[in-house]
This record gives sequence, structure tokens and C-alpha cells, in this order.
Amino acid sequence: MRTAFYISDGTAITSEVFGHALLSLFPVEFEHDTISFVETEEQAIAARERINKAAKRTGEPPLVFHTFVNPKIREIIDSCDGVIYNFLEHFVAPIEKELKVAATPKAHRTHSIHENSYDNRIDAVNYSLANDDGSNITNYEQADVILIGVSRSGKTPTSLYLALQYGIKAANYPFIDDDMDDLRLPDFLKPHKHKLFGLTIDPQRLMDIRDGRMANSKYSSARQCRMEIREVEKLYKKEKIKYLNTTKFSVEEITAKILSMTGLQRHKY
Amino acid sequence: MRTAFYISDGTAITSEVFGHALLSLFPVEFEHDTISFVETEEQAIAARERINKAAKRTGEPPLVFHTFVNPKIREIIDSCDGVIYNFLEHFVAPIEKELKVAATPKAHRTHSIHENSYDNRIDAVNYSLANDDGSNITNYEQADVILIGVSRSGKTPTSLYLALQYGIKAANYPFIDDDMDDLRLPDFLKPHKHKLFGLTIDPQRLMDIRDGRMANSKYSSARQCRMEIREVEKLYKKEKIKYLNTTKFSVEEITAKILSMTGLQRHKY
Repeated sequence: MRTAFYISDGTAITSEVFGHALLSLFPVEFEHDTISFVETEEQAIAARERINKAAKRTGEPPLVFHTFVNPKIREIIDSCDGVIYNFLEHFVAPIEKELKVAATPKAHRTHSIHENSYDNRIDAVNYSLANDDGSNITNYEQADVILIGVSRSGKTPTSLYLALQYGIKAANYPFIDDDMDDLRLPDFLKPHKHKLFGLTIDPQRLMDIRDGRMANSKYSSARQCRMEIREVEKLYKKEKIKYLNTTKFSVEEITAKILSMTGLQRHKY
Repeated sequence: MRTAFYISDGTAITSEVFGHALLSLFPVEFEHDTISFVETEEQAIAARERINKAAKRTGEPPLVFHTFVNPKIREIIDSCDGVIYNFLEHFVAPIEKELKVAATPKAHRTHSIHENSYDNRIDAVNYSLANDDGSNITNYEQADVILIGVSRSGKTPTSLYLALQYGIKAANYPFIDDDMDDLRLPDFLKPHKHKLFGLTIDPQRLMDIRDGRMANSKYSSARQCRMEIREVEKLYKKEKIKYLNTTKFSVEEITAKILSMTGLQRHKY
């Protein structure tokens, strides 16, 4: 299998995202290899060695996605037996021209700590953990958003992703079986109605997920799942709460849709 | 302030990463605006309108980072009053030539659910939550990695990031004041020594973080923080446990360094 390398002097997240976006367009399988924190010429030589070995082993030149701005290190990587793709090369000059400002490569630290965004995110993670799954209903003043929905509709991973990636304080509150006879918005959520966002999910998918946790239970029965989903969706509509069906979406997509539907402010861009 | 737009038919995460990597090279501030899930011509026309309004308001053409492959939508966005940067344009053809395979744009769903990676990640998040902060010490068989360290050295956000981004089951276990008199590896960790990874942090930074939680306490005192850090670092060295000082790093960097130092296998690339 042909190898794709993602290399950088930092996390290499940018190289990975760049390379994946391109490779996902092709019906070809790759072996992926990330080499992060290549900060010295020695490390660059070792990285080149790793690429050259892959070239020999697979008999095909690896695809190498990188974003080096340091000319010395870049030269070493560029001299490997792989095929080089570096988007900075193509775009820095046109943007310099447009902005009438020279690039200052030292600032190239996309994923490092800056502008308090770190503390913001850690605070948000702590908030989201402390306010997960209805574990604390007295703290909603501080929430940026409160996700609501039935058990296993995606609330917890979405809350954590909002907090970790964007520094958004996301609480979440579950509706449980006991609520279902006469489902209404609990009094303590009413003052925060503008912050509520509902999640829903196809009953069949909900059944599958719940069955993985508690097989052959009432909790995972078709009847129960259908009833819970019907009731929460009725509530969302009656209370005019924005909501999203998460069935076909990844955490990234659910989060991006929530940001787009609510206009929530990110603390990290 | 000049505006930068990040636009896509999906989450726009790729456009954001692409744009940020470039703009972070310039000492210029931007107002950022993401328009995600532009999937129809109508939505593309609305996005173009938003760009054109920003152009009018700021008096400068916005920078527009996008990754559209659908030619109709792309044409609409490209006809806006902004300056267009689209890396697919530059790289698809060379990669087609190299792979001798035509790109199949429908596959362009970088951040959508595929290959069980979703279930992997949700399982990993549930595992990491259930095994956070030493809350469960009987489940380490299933762990891919167990982070250890003193309180507030970054264990929880790092565990969650490993789980959410890479589907890695990351438990974490804290050393507390009571352990410090004679710090040693607890018996229940010994069988899993190969999975242990230590976090440490500069005592001054630890003090600042702890002081934010519990001001003027023993917990946040200079003496206590220095002592705890000294003891855990001694333990890491004695037991030959790989470790990392997290003081100057973001969650992305800490995670990337752990992956690089341990060779941990990601479940999502």
C-alpha cells in the first residue's frame, strides 16, 4: 500500500487536514504516517530517512504533505524520495501581495497556546464535565448552550467537543423514561430557554446504540425508543426549540451545525 | 478589520485549518466568519451575499478560503467580491497525475461518519469519562493509555482529546497529597506499566492554576506544588515512565507529542 506522510514542525494537524482533504477525493487506500515536531535538521534527516524507507518498502514514492516555512528543514524534506505537496508554497506569495504585508514565518504556530484560548478551553471542559447529563442543574447561568435530548442521542460527546475545540461552555440535560408520561420543560430550564438546543436521533439507530449497552431491556426496546423520540420531538416543536437529528452525522458535523444554527460565539477560532 | 471567510459544503473545518495556517503567518488581525453546509445553489448565493456585504462594510475584499468541488456552487462563490483561495484547485490535478486515478468528488466528506470511526470515538469518550481521575481502577485492561500526574497537570482534557479526536481509550489516574510521603506506583498500575504516560508541569504554572480553583490553600501553595512535582518526576525517572512537561503546550500539542513519543495507534486518521 502506498504511504502518505504528514510532516511539520508542530502538531502536523494542518498537514493531516490538508492531506486528508485531498486524498479523500480518491478511491485509493493509503498507509498514513505522521511525523510531528520536526524542529531540527537532525530530525528532518531522520524524517527523510523514514520516507525513503517507505519508498523502498512499497516500491512507490510516498505522498508527502508538509507545511515547513524554515528553509533549511524544508530543503531536507523536499530532497526525499517522495512526492512533495506544500500548500504554503502556492499561497503565501499571493496573500502577501493581497495584504501588502510580508509573511513572518515565526508566527506559524497554529495549534499552540495563544490569547487565553487555552484557559478558556480548559474552563469550558471543566464546566461541561461538571454539568454533564443533568448532574448539576444550578449552574445554567454560566452555560453558553444547554443540549437536551434522550439518553444516547449524542449529548455528551457533542458537549465535550464544543468545549475542547471552541471553548464553549456546553451543559447537557437528559430526558428519561419517568419524564415521558407528560413531557414538558422542567422549571429550572425555562429561564434558559434561549440557550436550549435539542438533539434527536432515528429510533432504529437509538435502539442499536442502547442495545449495545443494555441488550433486550425496556430501555433498548423498539417501542420505548420510538416513544421517547416522538415525545421529545413534540416538545421541541411545541416549545420552538431548535433541534437536530444526529443519526447520520459525526461529532464534527453535529457541532458545526449547532454553531451555524445558533450563531454561538466561539472562544477559539 | 478585514474579513476572512471559511466556506464549505461540510463542516468547513478543512477550510478553517487551511486559512488559519496561512493567516497565522501574517501580523494582521482578521474578523473570522465560517459558512458551513453550503450544499445548494441557493445557499451559495446567500453565502456570496454575505461576503459581498462584508466587502462593502469593510471597504476591502474579504479573503475567502474554500474547498468546493461541485462546479456550480464553486462558480457562484468564485464570483463574489472577495479574493478566492482554494487549495483543491492547485493540488487535485497533480495528485491525479501521480496516482493515475481520477478524483471522485463525491467522496469529499472529510469529517463525516465512516469506517466505524464514529462508534470507536464514542466508545473511547465513554471509556475516558468512566475512567477519569482514578474513578475506576478496575478497567485498565481496556485502556490504550493511562495518563498519570498530579492534580491540574492536564490529564483530563488530554484524555478527552485523545478519545474524541483519535478514538484512543485514555484513562487517567491522579497522585494526591496523601501519596506523596512515599510516592510509588500503586499495585493496580504495575501490570499496565507499559501503558503509563506521565504528565508534569512547572510548579509556578501549577500554582497559578490551582490558585484559580482554591486560592490561598495548601493545595495551591508554592511549597506543595514544588514538592508534588519533584516527587512525581522522581517517580517517572525511577520507573522509566515516559513523561512530558505540559506547561507551554496546547491540548493539541500535548496529544501530538504523546502519539509521537508512544507510537500509540489511532483509530481515526
